[in-house]
Amino acid sequence: MKKYSLAIHGGAGTISKAQLTPKKELLYHEALQKALNVGKYFLENGGTALDAVEFSVRCLEDIDLFNAGKGSVFGNDGKHEMEASIMCGSTLNAGAVAGIRNVKNPIQLARMIKKNTDYVYLHGSEAENFAKINHLPFEDDEYFYTKERFEQLQAVKHSDKVILDHTDVDYKFGTVGAVALDQHGNLAAATSTGGLTNKRYGRLGDSSVIGAGTYANNETCAISCTGYGEYFIRTVVAHDVSCLMQYKGLSLQQASEIVIKDKLVKMGGEGGLIGVDAIGNIALVFNTEGMYRGYTSSKNTELTTKIYGD
Amino acid sequence: MKKYSLAIHGGAGTISKAQLTPKKELLYHEALQKALNVGKYFLENGGTALDAVEFSVRCLEDIDLFNAGKGSVFGNDGKHEMEASIMCGSTLNAGAVAGIRNVKNPIQLARMIKKNTDYVYLHGSEAENFAKINHLPFEDDEYFYTKERFEQLQAVKHSDKVILDHTDVDYKFGTVGAVALDQHGNLAAATSTGGLTNKRYGRLGDSSVIGAGTYANNETCAISCTGYGEYFIRTVVAHDVSCLMQYKGLSLQQASEIVIKDKLVKMGGEGGLIGVDAIGNIALVFNTEGMYRGYTSSKNTELTTKIYGD
Repeated sequence: MKKYSLAIHGGAGTISKAQLTPKKELLYHEALQKALNVGKYFLENGGTALDAVEFSVRCLEDIDLFNAGKGSVFGNDGKHEMEASIMCGSTLNAGAVAGIRNVKNPIQLARMIKKNTDYVYLHGSEAENFAKINHLPFEDDEYFYTKERFEQLQAVKHSDKVILDHTDVDYKFGTVGAVALDQHGNLAAATSTGGLTNKRYGRLGDSSVIGAGTYANNETCAISCTGYGEYFIRTVVAHDVSCLMQYKGLSLQQASEIVIKDKLVKMGGEGGLIGVDAIGNIALVFNTEGMYRGYTSSKNTELTTKIYGD
Repeated sequence: MKKYSLAIHGGAGTISKAQLTPKKELLYHEALQKALNVGKYFLENGGTALDAVEFSVRCLEDIDLFNAGKGSVFGNDGKHEMEASIMCGSTLNAGAVAGIRNVKNPIQLARMIKKNTDYVYLHGSEAENFAKINHLPFEDDEYFYTKERFEQLQAVKHSDKVILDHTDVDYKFGTVGAVALDQHGNLAAATSTGGLTNKRYGRLGDSSVIGAGTYANNETCAISCTGYGEYFIRTVVAHDVSCLMQYKGLSLQQASEIVIKDKLVKMGGEGGLIGVDAIGNIALVFNTEGMYRGYTSSKNTELTTKIYGD
C-alpha cells in the first residue's frame, strides 16, 4: 500500500483543563476519533483525499460539540450563518460558500459548487437556492439550536465588543477542518465554521476564503486553519505556508511555525492550522492554549487525538 | 518631494481596435485620466496611498464605462450585485464587501469596514445595513441601469453557459482598481467590480477576496487584479506576486509576469493586474488583448493611459 495521511481539527482557543470536565474531554476525543475513522476509511481503501476531507468535515459538522454545521454559534440576530470551503491540490479546483443558513452540511455544498459549476465562491440565499436545486439536505433552526451556544449569545448580545468578550472556551475559534494526502499522491483541504458568536452585518471569516482558511496544492501542502478569521484573511495564512515551502524551501513544520507562531503572534492573531505535505508529513501548529486535533497515517494507523498543548 | 506612484485599471479583456470606435476610445482615455488626476492630487500633496486608491476607484465607480459601481453589469435576476476590497500595506489592515446592491460606492464601504469595525469582510443585505447606519450614499436601480449592459444580459439570459458566452468586449473582466505608493513610503491597493453578466447563485469573484484580487504589503507591493475571478481565487494571484518578491527575491515585474503570463495561462485564466512596489516601480501585466490602464508618478508626472497591448 502506498502512503496516506489525514489530520483534522475542531478549533483552537483558550482551552484549559480547568474548564473542560473529564467527561466532556472524553466526548471531544470520541468525536475526533469518529471523524478520523471516516476519513481513514476512504484513504485506506484507495479513495480520494477530497472524499476523505469532505466526509471527515461532514462528520464534525454533524456533532454539536464543534462550531460548524449543527453546533454553529448564534449570530447577533439569533440565527446561524455558516461558511465552508474545499480545495483539491491536484487540479487547484476549489469550492466555497459563505453566509448560508439551514444547510445541513456546508462542506457538502462547497464540494458541489466545485464539482457542478464554473464558479468557485457563492454566498447567501442564492447559494441556498443552488443547494435546494441540487437536493442537498436542509434542517430547520431547531436542529442548529444548542443550549450552550444560545446562552453564549445571551451573555454578549447587548455588548458591542461581543466578539472577543465571551470568556467561555471552545466556541471562539471553533472551526472544523481536515487535510489529507491520498494513495494517489493527491492533497486536499476542507474547512467549515459557524463563525463568531454575536457576529453582525453579514461578517465573513477566513473559513470560506481560499488562500486564507483553506488551501491545497500538490506541489506543497494542504492546509486548514482555525482562529480569529480577520487576522487569517489579512495574513493569507494557508497560502503563505504553501509559498514559504515552494519559494523558500522550508518544511511544512517550519513554514507553519513561522506563520502561526511568529507572523500572527506579532499581529495579535490567535489560532492554529493543520497541514499535510506531499510526502505525508503532518503539522498541527497553534499559538493558543489548545486545539482540538487528531491525525492518522499509513505509517502509524492508530488514531491520535489531542486537546491541549504538548 | 519624496516619491510617489499611482496606477489604475478599468478591466482586462478581449479589447480589439475593431470593436472600439475612436470616439469611445477617447472616452476611456478621458475617464482613466480623470481617475488618475484624483489619486495624484492626494499623492502630490502628501496624502495617503489609501486615500489615493479609494478616491481613484470611486471616480471609476461613478463612470458607467466600467463594470463597477454605476456601470455594473446585470446579474441573471436583472439586479446589480457588487463587491470591493481595500488593503493598507503598512498595517495590513483590510476591508472587503461582497454581494451588495444599490450602494453607490462599494469601495467607500470597504474602506469604512476597514476603519470602523473589527471585521474585514462583510456581505449581503446586512453589509448594506452597516452602510445605511454609517450614512453612505445609496442609489436606486435606475442609477445602475445602462442600456448596453441590459442588452448584454438579454443576449445571454436564457443560456446556461452565459458567463463566458457574450462575445462583446469590455464587460467580461471590467473590474476597476488602483494601487499607490505615497510619499510616506506606504502602499495601498483597491479593487471594485460588478461581477459577471448573468451571474447566478450569489456568485462572488476575486475582487472582494484579500489575497486574490487585492493585496498590499509595504515589504513587497500593492496589487489589484482584473480577470476571470475563479482562476484568480484559485491562484491567490495578488498574494502570490507578493510572495514571489518576498521569498524568491524577484522584482515586481518578474513576479507579475510569472503569475499572469505563466501560471494563469497554463490554467486557462485570463486577466491582468496592476502593481506598485515599495520603491515606486509600476507593473501593468495582462494576458488578454488589452487592459484599460493608466499610471503616473513623481518621476514622470504626466498621465499615461493605454488600452491595447504595447
